[in-house]
Amino acid sequence: MSAVSSPKRTIEFSPGQPTVLIGERINPTGRQKLAESLARGNFGVLLSEAQRQVEAGADILDVNVTIPSGDEPALLREAVLQLVEKVGIPLCLDSANPAALEAALAVYPGRALVNSVTGEAHSLEAVLPLVKRHRAVVVGLPLDEHGIPGDPGLRLGIARRILEAAVQQGLSTEDVIIDCLATAAAVDPRAGAIALETVRLVSQELRANTLLGVSNVSFGLPGRAAINACFLGQAIAAGLTCAIADPTDPSVVQTIAAADLLAGRDEYARRYLAHYRRTRPR
Amino acid sequence: MSAVSSPKRTIEFSPGQPTVLIGERINPTGRQKLAESLARGNFGVLLSEAQRQVEAGADILDVNVTIPSGDEPALLREAVLQLVEKVGIPLCLDSANPAALEAALAVYPGRALVNSVTGEAHSLEAVLPLVKRHRAVVVGLPLDEHGIPGDPGLRLGIARRILEAAVQQGLSTEDVIIDCLATAAAVDPRAGAIALETVRLVSQELRANTLLGVSNVSFGLPGRAAINACFLGQAIAAGLTCAIADPTDPSVVQTIAAADLLAGRDEYARRYLAHYRRTRPR
Repeated sequence: MSAVSSPKRTIEFSPGQPTVLIGERINPTGRQKLAESLARGNFGVLLSEAQRQVEAGADILDVNVTIPSGDEPALLREAVLQLVEKVGIPLCLDSANPAALEAALAVYPGRALVNSVTGEAHSLEAVLPLVKRHRAVVVGLPLDEHGIPGDPGLRLGIARRILEAAVQQGLSTEDVIIDCLATAAAVDPRAGAIALETVRLVSQELRANTLLGVSNVSFGLPGRAAINACFLGQAIAAGLTCAIADPTDPSVVQTIAAADLLAGRDEYARRYLAHYRRTRPR
Repeated sequence: MSAVSSPKRTIEFSPGQPTVLIGERINPTGRQKLAESLARGNFGVLLSEAQRQVEAGADILDVNVTIPSGDEPALLREAVLQLVEKVGIPLCLDSANPAALEAALAVYPGRALVNSVTGEAHSLEAVLPLVKRHRAVVVGLPLDEHGIPGDPGLRLGIARRILEAAVQQGLSTEDVIIDCLATAAAVDPRAGAIALETVRLVSQELRANTLLGVSNVSFGLPGRAAINACFLGQAIAAGLTCAIADPTDPSVVQTIAAADLLAGRDEYARRYLAHYRRTRPR
């Protein structure tokens, strides 16, 4: 059982629990309005994206403020301070810059999710001590100096090494969530199947919690929502415990409700029925 | 590679091919208008359900005309004659009555799909010789005198016995498609997961084609289309080659397009893109 928290809320995840939904929309890549407002030091767009995602059903918010020529440590720290004040749910601090992670972790009042560490030596050395010091939970990406393996068995091997490095650092294996790496099906038709098989292997062999950035799979294709929903349902059937996706896309929340029901992760269909009543046409 | 045919069309199925969609709507259970018209010997409703399903994208039509106190052999024979004249796609003859199957097979001009044989001795003895004699393909249900096993391994065992009995009868293993048995998640929360694991086992261990009556899984729940679509996508990821579902539900055709793409069963995303262009909002 992994758990992250804010002062008001604890989110637990494990294979028996409901799928955890991490809102993906606080990310300036491809969102010009957010990028421009952050460049001006204005957090209004960021806060309204946060609010929309919380209302739509996000359990956790991913926070990525990486913009060209931005002072990322200062920006991420300020974003976290504002979000903690304005929204109640836990945060996922998303940066490739350890200094930015450090600055944000220092002001985060709870157990944050850190996104991410890779299997590369420099990443493990820089990120894991931070995670340990701040009692955070970390997302592990099964890629290394050679890139992202196309083979699920090789991804499993790197995932295992990340877990071992975390334990050596004094963390528990439950403090690491493996991102099984959704890549674009438009580039490699096997991308979806490889990610699903990695979810299955990591869940079964390592008994670790798993995550996917669902929307990556549909990159470059039209009608992305339909592909994302289908893939999300498949990943939950394969054992996925945590999805990064867009909570404001109604098919995301609907798919989680249906897939959790089908996976036996929703006793008496309680959450499915609540979702149905909330969204049915009047 | 299994194949069924009508005079105008051959439908092949195998794990590498697109998922085959069998239209479920010609079935009087829960469709009073169809039941009443059949009881009067009127085939107008049946033919209009056929036409709607062909237009919506069905590859094969399931034909079930079982009504209380109906003369099923005569009804099924007449339904098949009318359908062969009016629609071009192959038929799936759906009856628990071997005499009805025999009467319909005798007039069907092609390779029909026969739905179904079970693992029970009396069913194997009655149905397999018919299938052999008429060069048909048969749906095998992995249930026996003890009912439907709740364990995927036991279902696999019965499926294996059905394939062995078919081979003894002079059929090829490709002439049997295993229905992995979707039952109601409202009755057993593990129903979906058991069916999916059976699809995986039958595909991998027996290399047989697999089928699911998708809509059964949502029986007794509200908002059924969302559950059916999610489950269909999961089943295709597990290796399903053939689905009995409602082609007039847009989410069924959309899910097959997305799931075939994600399973690498749609080279260059050709069919996904054609579906997208046909259905996108203008």
